[in-house]
Amino acid sequence: MDEREAQAAIAGHRARIDEIDCRIVELLNDRAALSLEIRRLKPQVHWGLYDPKREEEIFANLSSCNKGPLYGENLREIYSAILHVMKELQG
Amino acid sequence: MDEREAQAAIAGHRARIDEIDCRIVELLNDRAALSLEIRRLKPQVHWGLYDPKREEEIFANLSSCNKGPLYGENLREIYSAILHVMKELQG
Repeated sequence: MDEREAQAAIAGHRARIDEIDCRIVELLNDRAALSLEIRRLKPQVHWGLYDPKREEEIFANLSSCNKGPLYGENLREIYSAILHVMKELQG
Repeated sequence: MDEREAQAAIAGHRARIDEIDCRIVELLNDRAALSLEIRRLKPQVHWGLYDPKREEEIFANLSSCNKGPLYGENLREIYSAILHVMKELQG
């Protein structure tokens, strides 16, 4: 592959990454909407707002569906940020 | 909605969140594979490994496709973790 072909390949991969990111943003927003709805329902079932058991379930689910190349610890780092944001949003 | 119905609704929302998370994991892995391929190609085009302009493009793309309820700053927080992980993976 010459330099021009390598540049074109990088541009193509970046365009695909931008598409993937838009899909991830859409899914994160769907997730946030569900999370807000759960927040609204929680007082009716007399549950606390913070539920460490549910957090363990979330991490177990991530591991069960991970096929790589990301490692479990990579997903843990990303999901720490995602769960932090979801908690902030729930106020 | 009585307490039992609220519990069932929460369980349903959590199952949907688990599905969304598996799809996000799949997309993050696709993104990581593309990122590793770009890393492999970069020496051929004589580009530096860190590209702040590309990072700006990524954040501009996130804003352009965000329809909420997440705020721009929420996505920035999540993507700081995602981009950090991608950089670590590229070694």
